[in-house]
Amino acid sequence: MPTQETLIPLSGWRRKLYIIIYEADTRAGRLFDLTLTLAILVSVACVMLESVAGIRQRYGALLSLLDWFFTILFTVEYALRLICVHKPLRYVKSFFGVIDLLSILPLYLGLFIPESRFLADIRILRLLRMFRILKLSRHLSEALELRRALAASRRKITVFLATVILLVIILGTLMYVIEGPEHGFTSIPISIYWAIVTLTTVGFGDITPKTPLGQALASLVMITGYGIIAVPTGIVTAEIARGKPASRSDNQSATRLCPHCFSEGHDWDAHFCKHCGGQLPRPSRDQVS
Amino acid sequence: MPTQETLIPLSGWRRKLYIIIYEADTRAGRLFDLTLTLAILVSVACVMLESVAGIRQRYGALLSLLDWFFTILFTVEYALRLICVHKPLRYVKSFFGVIDLLSILPLYLGLFIPESRFLADIRILRLLRMFRILKLSRHLSEALELRRALAASRRKITVFLATVILLVIILGTLMYVIEGPEHGFTSIPISIYWAIVTLTTVGFGDITPKTPLGQALASLVMITGYGIIAVPTGIVTAEIARGKPASRSDNQSATRLCPHCFSEGHDWDAHFCKHCGGQLPRPSRDQVS
Amino acid sequence: MPTQETLIPLSGWRRKLYIIIYEADTRAGRLFDLTLTLAILVSVACVMLESVAGIRQRYGALLSLLDWFFTILFTVEYALRLICVHKPLRYVKSFFGVIDLLSILPLYLGLFIPESRFLADIRILRLLRMFRILKLSRHLSEALELRRALAASRRKITVFLATVILLVIILGTLMYVIEGPEHGFTSIPISIYWAIVTLTTVGFGDITPKTPLGQALASLVMITGYGIIAVPTGIVTAEIARGKPASRSDNQSATRLCPHCFSEGHDWDAHFCKHCGGQLPRPSRDQVS
Amino acid sequence: MPTQETLIPLSGWRRKLYIIIYEADTRAGRLFDLTLTLAILVSVACVMLESVAGIRQRYGALLSLLDWFFTILFTVEYALRLICVHKPLRYVKSFFGVIDLLSILPLYLGLFIPESRFLADIRILRLLRMFRILKLSRHLSEALELRRALAASRRKITVFLATVILLVIILGTLMYVIEGPEHGFTSIPISIYWAIVTLTTVGFGDITPKTPLGQALASLVMITGYGIIAVPTGIVTAEIARGKPASRSDNQSATRLCPHCFSEGHDWDAHFCKHCGGQLPRPSRDQVS
Repeated sequence: MPTQETLIPLSGWRRKLYIIIYEADTRAGRLFDLTLTLAILVSVACVMLESVAGIRQRYGALLSLLDWFFTILFTVEYALRLICVHKPLRYVKSFFGVIDLLSILPLYLGLFIPESRFLADIRILRLLRMFRILKLSRHLSEALELRRALAASRRKITVFLATVILLVIILGTLMYVIEGPEHGFTSIPISIYWAIVTLTTVGFGDITPKTPLGQALASLVMITGYGIIAVPTGIVTAEIARGKPASRSDNQSATRLCPHCFSEGHDWDAHFCKHCGGQLPRPSRDQVS
Repeated sequence: MPTQETLIPLSGWRRKLYIIIYEADTRAGRLFDLTLTLAILVSVACVMLESVAGIRQRYGALLSLLDWFFTILFTVEYALRLICVHKPLRYVKSFFGVIDLLSILPLYLGLFIPESRFLADIRILRLLRMFRILKLSRHLSEALELRRALAASRRKITVFLATVILLVIILGTLMYVIEGPEHGFTSIPISIYWAIVTLTTVGFGDITPKTPLGQALASLVMITGYGIIAVPTGIVTAEIARGKPASRSDNQSATRLCPHCFSEGHDWDAHFCKHCGGQLPRPSRDQVS
Repeated sequence: MPTQETLIPLSGWRRKLYIIIYEADTRAGRLFDLTLTLAILVSVACVMLESVAGIRQRYGALLSLLDWFFTILFTVEYALRLICVHKPLRYVKSFFGVIDLLSILPLYLGLFIPESRFLADIRILRLLRMFRILKLSRHLSEALELRRALAASRRKITVFLATVILLVIILGTLMYVIEGPEHGFTSIPISIYWAIVTLTTVGFGDITPKTPLGQALASLVMITGYGIIAVPTGIVTAEIARGKPASRSDNQSATRLCPHCFSEGHDWDAHFCKHCGGQLPRPSRDQVS
Repeated sequence: MPTQETLIPLSGWRRKLYIIIYEADTRAGRLFDLTLTLAILVSVACVMLESVAGIRQRYGALLSLLDWFFTILFTVEYALRLICVHKPLRYVKSFFGVIDLLSILPLYLGLFIPESRFLADIRILRLLRMFRILKLSRHLSEALELRRALAASRRKITVFLATVILLVIILGTLMYVIEGPEHGFTSIPISIYWAIVTLTTVGFGDITPKTPLGQALASLVMITGYGIIAVPTGIVTAEIARGKPASRSDNQSATRLCPHCFSEGHDWDAHFCKHCGGQLPRPSRDQVS
């Protein structure tokens, strides 16, 4: 049986770094996470502002500088995360490992394809990790309950979506034949796009039927859409109503992290990861409850 | 009592063909179904691409050739389905029999009415049969549960739709009188179309009220629509919540087919069709579980 | 205690007429109701067709003639209904009495205000009475169940609508101040109209925010609207789920009518009206079950 | 223990004024509240009419006069409320104290920033207080039930909204990169605004995707929006269905007001405020039940 010492890095500084970066229970760990959250928010704001033509013309240089500053910061952080973890590849392939990498790539890619640098925005997903530091374990458990309800209605929703897809293909084809290119239904894929816009009750109005027959069919589509909006709602509602209020909600251990598979949400008194079976580190002493 | 031998064709090759085409439990049957699925998907993609003006100009000849290739393929398949079945008329009148015929007609019709050849897209419905080969019996049983919930709320939904239809006729007439042709409400049918667009919260914006009175009535329509969207949802949700999780879900026999009435979803241990009472063929030996 | 003879007209021909017109259980009564339904549908279709400019130019004279034919027919019918009933004023003030009158007035009014003749469409509401002749007692009982659910959630929906009205007034005012007349928000009432269009997720797009602040507020409105669409649905769903399946559904007496207050839905074995306490006529002998 | 005399003002006229203004159980109090309601409705109507250009040009002077009349009236009322209450600061900081102040400020502010005077509309919120005088205690208790259901689903809705916000940021960024400024997606914030418009199924149509890839992504967004509209509905419905019908509904004491913290909804037989623990005045004798 592997002891705890073999799971998180042995050497002193790597071990300390691991606790600061991956754990949220020490003061240093909390400070690190809060700084990171702030950096993510500011850098995303920068990317957004840079996309506004008026602001880019004025403050383009400054924003570009900030972009590079944050990207290098996150690159260093990514390197540190790789160094201080026992099995770097596991981190790289974990959900947050992929997100962390995607957060720094766009700007480097932007050297070749200018537009792609705006994709740095995707780093907003890194905030998902922050549920932990904000001690939002109750929210987390309600989120898990929602996910459970959605997972339980997985198959029903698949069946529903498959029906919708078949429906829009047939409706799109019919509208293409009825209305034709002269009324904006330029091709079957465009007509399918119109059918989706209509069936989901979005109704942009960029393409609208002009012939009486087309309008009659569109009316049918809309009333159908109105009716079948009831189906996913019914599925999810029945599933949520079936569920019990989460019993884990008072458990403070939502901040614990498995050092093997990087999964979260372990119980306070858990010794082993419920996902990969690896041993969990003991909860730290100076934790703020 | 009819024995099994009298139900599916007696002669060797017709019997073998029947098992390949209609059953999904032998290796040959699976291969046939997978090939068919692929052919359907590719041919639908061809029809869609052909409708895009840019692609038609370039690859029109090729796509037209493929269209004819697949249509002839499906025509041959239709003929084989007719030949190898004991009572061809039953197949012709069954749900999938009609779909199969509709899948091959458009291109032949297209020789007279060019536009109609795009309706070949309708063959996407043939994929519904593929639930069987993909062994999606769990999905099938959830689909049946959804259908049960919808069927149980049939009458309530009819009442609701009848109310909506009366409502849009009256609202459309009122808007026609209030706004008149000069604001786009050119006739009562068009105004009813507008009322449906608005009540279902689609809101294309191709026709909008301009007079204060018209806007006030439209506001009323929208708030009503917002309110009555609750009714079908409530009906379906209550029905789904009432239902038990399907108990048939572990039953592998969703791939069995009645050779008399072409119904599916027979239990693993069933000997007779639950819809027409006809005897079912024994499940094949080399079935992949 | 009044005997049955004093309730429906005493004299032979008035009594016979009453049974034909108000009851649906004799052959003559059924024939009368079916003819009436047909006349209503055809006359409504005439009014609709007349509103289409192209058709009016061609067949205007014919349609106008048909309009007058049906209006005179319904006027005669209205007179007969008045004559053959024991207490005509009660009929005049009943729901269907008002509808019947509204169905014949528009054309006479149209002599003075031409546009108003299209309101004759309102006679489509007379079809509500036809639930009786079609023996749709099951549908009727489900409709009653829906009405019960809506009535039970009456107060919650009132509270909800009051909240929505306060909300759109404040949002409309804010948008008017933020965007101003130069972006289409020409007055507070128009801005309130926009707020309703947006909050109900209809989104015509005839008025849209142009300033960043306006778009931010609009985003807030939309997400709010998305959220609060859940409230009426939740109310109605909970109420429908609470209800039991209607137990009256097999009761054939939905075709019985109280000759005193013109209410419907009396039980098969009822002797007195459950609404006004008046004695009910015996169910006729040659009733089709 | 404080006696009742120390809670509401001691001196005769302030005490009388307090009962008239803050209580709704005496005749004078009812008259005061009804007058106030009328004044609020008329003044809001004035502000709205003033915003319509045509009406402003004609009746601008009159409406401006009425504006000032009502603002001075409400200012005097605000002063009286301050004078007759024992602890004025508590009133100023209470919910209705803030609303009352916001109702009179805009016109004074309008002397410096003309547009802001339309914000006087916000005084419509003062009507919330009127639930009391209209003896709408049943509606109030249903409103409280709705609030309870919403409060109970607070965390689930927060999780849901956080997910939606992350989603629209990423979708907006992707659409900005795919479509670019030439198709109306001029910046990331505008693209996020578009994503919100689309995901909430509002669909103004002021910005629409033009490229095939953009339309494909938009289709995905719409189907997602269609699906996740089910989630808040499911949450709220499950919560409402869980709740019992309010048991307080027959309690007439919804018109009682705590003189300490200005909270409402105290039970008929309560002697102390359930929110701040202060002693409640006895219900008045001439109360209309």
